[in-house]
Amino acid sequence: MTFSRSSSITFFILALFAVLINPAISSRASSFIKPPRRSSIASYCESWRLAAETNNAGTWKVVPSQCENYVKNYINGGQFDKDYDVVASYAIAYAKTVKLGRDGKDAWVFDIDETLLSNIEYYKAHGYGSQPYDNTLFNEWVVKGTAPGFDASLRLYKALKKLGFTIILLTGRDESQRSITEKNLRDVGYFGWNRLLLRGKNDQGKAATQYKSEQRSKVVKEGYKIHGNTGDQWSDLQGFAVAARSFKVPNPMYYIP
Amino acid sequence: MTFSRSSSITFFILALFAVLINPAISSRASSFIKPPRRSSIASYCESWRLAAETNNAGTWKVVPSQCENYVKNYINGGQFDKDYDVVASYAIAYAKTVKLGRDGKDAWVFDIDETLLSNIEYYKAHGYGSQPYDNTLFNEWVVKGTAPGFDASLRLYKALKKLGFTIILLTGRDESQRSITEKNLRDVGYFGWNRLLLRGKNDQGKAATQYKSEQRSKVVKEGYKIHGNTGDQWSDLQGFAVAARSFKVPNPMYYIP
Repeated sequence: MTFSRSSSITFFILALFAVLINPAISSRASSFIKPPRRSSIASYCESWRLAAETNNAGTWKVVPSQCENYVKNYINGGQFDKDYDVVASYAIAYAKTVKLGRDGKDAWVFDIDETLLSNIEYYKAHGYGSQPYDNTLFNEWVVKGTAPGFDASLRLYKALKKLGFTIILLTGRDESQRSITEKNLRDVGYFGWNRLLLRGKNDQGKAATQYKSEQRSKVVKEGYKIHGNTGDQWSDLQGFAVAARSFKVPNPMYYIP
Repeated sequence: MTFSRSSSITFFILALFAVLINPAISSRASSFIKPPRRSSIASYCESWRLAAETNNAGTWKVVPSQCENYVKNYINGGQFDKDYDVVASYAIAYAKTVKLGRDGKDAWVFDIDETLLSNIEYYKAHGYGSQPYDNTLFNEWVVKGTAPGFDASLRLYKALKKLGFTIILLTGRDESQRSITEKNLRDVGYFGWNRLLLRGKNDQGKAATQYKSEQRSKVVKEGYKIHGNTGDQWSDLQGFAVAARSFKVPNPMYYIP
């Protein structure tokens, strides 16, 4: 979720230029398509959320403004937690079928933001994703180190540890946020990970799919088998050196390409 | 959706054997995981459907029995059609951003069953996917050639034709069903496809992902660029020679590995 400020500016200038020379590109990046006729707002937002979760919506910058309330109700009304919990149950059911070796090379990869740690408190104060992403404000929130865990993720994490998986944490957070991230994770109950991989100097400006694939690839070259991967973004799960099974946890608030 | 009878029997025997020697495998193939505590049936089925649509549920054989009514209401109540329509709109918005060459090599791949043609009428008579798949009965339905199209798919198909895309149809249906499939497609309004690829002798028993990837690969080797792919199954969209953008249309009734 974090990008360096300079790469954000470069991206913005490039994106603006691309739109100026080709107006069609702006629609590609749009999070809004015309709602079907005879469709209520709630019904449209339901379809929009499914399209976002299944990656049909492609790159989207903000939650469509008419869906802010829908997302708020989905997050706070209990269905979000239930959806999350069912994904964790499927992941545990799968993990139990994996035959682990004795070499400690059976790995499970976790993303952090919106996967192990919840930034919902931050997004509540910023329109549930209907306001454009603000890198400065978001990082101010991150360094507080007060993000809660998700009950379902804690349940999955503990089950995987008990089964003997080697846990690899792979995040788009910056290397400079290592200590606060580790403290935050421990404070809410995560423990005993094999390593925490953050964006270093050479990873700045890379698309998340590329950066995360490269990191997984290094892990695989060390002899690990990545049996499972859990993330809230498709860019956590796709690319190369992908896991045998990937689990997409719900996140209707933002999209990282 | 169609497998040869002999390969179905072989698969069944292998699957039974696998379950007998390793009871854990049965849970891997299960479509049912324990609903979260304090969760209503509707709420659980909502989570189940999202897990199925995002491929978190993995391989599942039947709709969980307690969700038959939920699926029935989702399909007939209008939300299914709206979800479908929004996917079509995203696909059209993307297609409009593609810069087509003049060589006719800009391709879009479509699956057929539950993508261009609807078998909902068949599934209505068979518990909306809550009854185990019956290859014989399903093929009896297919050869009637009376499957309707989906409004949203017709809209997408026509838009792509108008934009100049070369349409490739790629189905798990058997080569023996070529004529009736072509007639059925034409009857409901599809026209002008470049080719219809069906399972031939050498494709029997292959997993859908493998078979479809091989077919796409041949198309790519002919010099086509596969810009888009539309299917109701992840096995339509994943594997190798994948499209630049894939669009997963909803199908809560069955899963093809």
